[in-house]
Amino acid sequence: MSLAKARTMPGVMELLPLDQIAFQTMMETIRRNFERFGFLPIETPAIEFTDVLLTKSGGETERQVYFVQSTGSLQKGDDPTLALRFDLTVPLARYVAEHEHDLSFPFRRYQMQRVYRGESAQRGRFREFYQCDIDVIGKDQLSVRYDAELPAVIHSIFRELNVGAFTLQLNNRKILRGFFERLGVTDGEQQMQVLREVDKIDKRGAAAVRQTLTAEPFSLPAEQADAIMAFVAQRSSSHDSALAMLEALGGGNTTLEAGIAEMREVLTLLKALGVPEAFYLLNFSIARGLDYYTGTVFETILTAHPEIGSVCSGGRYENLASHYTKSRLPGVGVSIGATRLFYQLREAGLIGTARSSVQAMVAMLDDADLPLYLELAGQLRAAGINTEVQLEPKKLGKQFQYADRAGIRFVLMLGTDEKAKGVVAIKDMWRQEQFEVERAELTRTLRVEIEQSEAMPKVKTP
Amino acid sequence: MSLAKARTMPGVMELLPLDQIAFQTMMETIRRNFERFGFLPIETPAIEFTDVLLTKSGGETERQVYFVQSTGSLQKGDDPTLALRFDLTVPLARYVAEHEHDLSFPFRRYQMQRVYRGESAQRGRFREFYQCDIDVIGKDQLSVRYDAELPAVIHSIFRELNVGAFTLQLNNRKILRGFFERLGVTDGEQQMQVLREVDKIDKRGAAAVRQTLTAEPFSLPAEQADAIMAFVAQRSSSHDSALAMLEALGGGNTTLEAGIAEMREVLTLLKALGVPEAFYLLNFSIARGLDYYTGTVFETILTAHPEIGSVCSGGRYENLASHYTKSRLPGVGVSIGATRLFYQLREAGLIGTARSSVQAMVAMLDDADLPLYLELAGQLRAAGINTEVQLEPKKLGKQFQYADRAGIRFVLMLGTDEKAKGVVAIKDMWRQEQFEVERAELTRTLRVEIEQSEAMPKVKTP
Repeated sequence: MSLAKARTMPGVMELLPLDQIAFQTMMETIRRNFERFGFLPIETPAIEFTDVLLTKSGGETERQVYFVQSTGSLQKGDDPTLALRFDLTVPLARYVAEHEHDLSFPFRRYQMQRVYRGESAQRGRFREFYQCDIDVIGKDQLSVRYDAELPAVIHSIFRELNVGAFTLQLNNRKILRGFFERLGVTDGEQQMQVLREVDKIDKRGAAAVRQTLTAEPFSLPAEQADAIMAFVAQRSSSHDSALAMLEALGGGNTTLEAGIAEMREVLTLLKALGVPEAFYLLNFSIARGLDYYTGTVFETILTAHPEIGSVCSGGRYENLASHYTKSRLPGVGVSIGATRLFYQLREAGLIGTARSSVQAMVAMLDDADLPLYLELAGQLRAAGINTEVQLEPKKLGKQFQYADRAGIRFVLMLGTDEKAKGVVAIKDMWRQEQFEVERAELTRTLRVEIEQSEAMPKVKTP
Repeated sequence: MSLAKARTMPGVMELLPLDQIAFQTMMETIRRNFERFGFLPIETPAIEFTDVLLTKSGGETERQVYFVQSTGSLQKGDDPTLALRFDLTVPLARYVAEHEHDLSFPFRRYQMQRVYRGESAQRGRFREFYQCDIDVIGKDQLSVRYDAELPAVIHSIFRELNVGAFTLQLNNRKILRGFFERLGVTDGEQQMQVLREVDKIDKRGAAAVRQTLTAEPFSLPAEQADAIMAFVAQRSSSHDSALAMLEALGGGNTTLEAGIAEMREVLTLLKALGVPEAFYLLNFSIARGLDYYTGTVFETILTAHPEIGSVCSGGRYENLASHYTKSRLPGVGVSIGATRLFYQLREAGLIGTARSSVQAMVAMLDDADLPLYLELAGQLRAAGINTEVQLEPKKLGKQFQYADRAGIRFVLMLGTDEKAKGVVAIKDMWRQEQFEVERAELTRTLRVEIEQSEAMPKVKTP
């Protein structure tokens, strides 16, 4: 029989078990913090109807969609009516519209699932990846106060992920558009185009963006372009300096004044939420490319790794589900691309291979004593200790080698001597030391050791 | 603008948040027990290459496959080269073959992911559903001892799921085939066909199966058919009676004798693993439809709900990945269809809506005190208590109503009186009682209350 080559399609992340454990540890940290702030879980199907998924005017997004067809539909030559979700925002909109009358608003939801994009394969680009999203959805209206809650969650997550210093970079699109308006760029569409150019400063550099703004089709006068570039170069260096930046803006139109008032409230609540001011700053160049943001926008930058770009971004939008319902559902949301984040943290050396989830292994010393080993394992498992048993005779050296390679910390031995003395011999593979424990003290001793090591970071840096 | 109807495709399970929490509680119980027995996590991509996924000779499975195409591939009119996995066994085979040299054998893996089948829509049938699989894969050989470990894991899971009495029903295909051989059904292919008929007794009834065995193409003599029906009607009623059933079989050919020896070892180790004998029995009618099982087979039946059928099944196979590698990789595995299980447990009234993952809500009494409420919430979150804050002024009655509907237990109030006295007023929504706690004692008091209630079942029965 000819063999099929065992391989995955390009653009997916498949991990060996210890890396998978490290990934799951990261995911659990994210989930725990989402729940800590009162967000509720939902999951939606990976497959949606195309007319539900592709309501927005096609373009870039539509070209990256994976369509789905059953064998029957394919054979009939039908056009596909199903497709895989490409983000969690469209499914959220569909979910909230569908279940509107069963939900309490404001609805704080979290969702951690995989999404699919038919991207061309490229290093660090994924066709299948996890997104971890939180959104707060209001019915009819939603106070700007919720905009402060999201960066507080993000701060809590990245602090626990233990990835070094980071900053939450905040802005408000109304400030950008109000400032452009005051400068004389009054057309709403042109404001959005300028905003999209500003968003490219990190990639293209300030000089190139200024050049674009003065050239066709923008054709802004040099002094307007200069004013914009000077404006977006501003960053705060403390909570008070952020408030002073807002103060210094002055006013002049309702959009600008609304943006300043919102930003001030977000900053004030962020402080009240206990986020240390070293972790957030006001950055007038943050714009976010997507058109649907209307107010607060945020990005998250790892201080030592600006090259990674934003690891967590989001913002405020006016109406989530206008394609499915006449109800007005304003919201604010933020998304972590967890697969890409894990990949980048690993590339940057900020995350390593995890220790095993298996905490103890019972060695096989005498085949006839297997029932004793199984009983011992049962005792450990009942105490919440993840335990495996060597079920087949093998040289002890080989068994240690296996435990070492598998990342298992404790190897337990119950030989003739130990049985006679009523003890268990334990080899601590991390510390490379061996000791004996009274059988009655075994689970308590191991629990203490494990709890102490759990207080330390669970993932070794490489 | 015309609205798209917000809807999911038929055959998927989408839950409201409190039901999602109940589902996740079930999934966490399964995961915790998998890890307790030393199984390691893997995840594979939902999309696989068709030549990898569809190696086996088509038939029923192939007709249920969902094929996947990007926009570009679809426009070119290409045949799809990608498809969604329909189980976790084929991806495991591909994974083990691909990463063979990076894995330690025996490889205990668990995997909890969604699979996809283009089934015709039907009540209780799912097109997208979670499978929770464990397998132990050996290199070249794998002792039958591992076959005892899997039912021990299953026992541990179903005991914790709190779904009432259940039994693990065990058998060994070698016993069936050896018995058929001794009766005179010596052709291997015919043995398999008889075995498949025996597997249908639950659905078709014994009389109909006996009828089939005596008719074309089987044409077994009446006394052979009667012997088979009498044989497969046997059940053990205790550990000792199971051993006696094996003893009474006698011998006569190597297949039968090997099956008896394997079954005896599995039973002995199952007892040594601490599984109470009320939870397992030997049932000679258990055959499992799938062709690839070769030895031990198991099913799990809820005593009060036999109509549900097996909620967790599996068995031993000779060679996992013969389509991808020349290495011999025998294994034993078991699978829980978690989406169907959850659906059925809910239908049977064995699982209800969960309590919220949000444990406390800080009420809004005075808009000016919002910073105080946020500080209080920060204190609770730092103590590991999931907390939300009412960010906007609203009548207190409405806030209680919201907490009640959302399933939040504790509503915290910090009004003028409480501030003056240095206390927090707490309304326990479950007990409908209100009390005051010193501010310094707050988190400790709530932690005690929460830990006590966590010792109780987390999910209310309806």
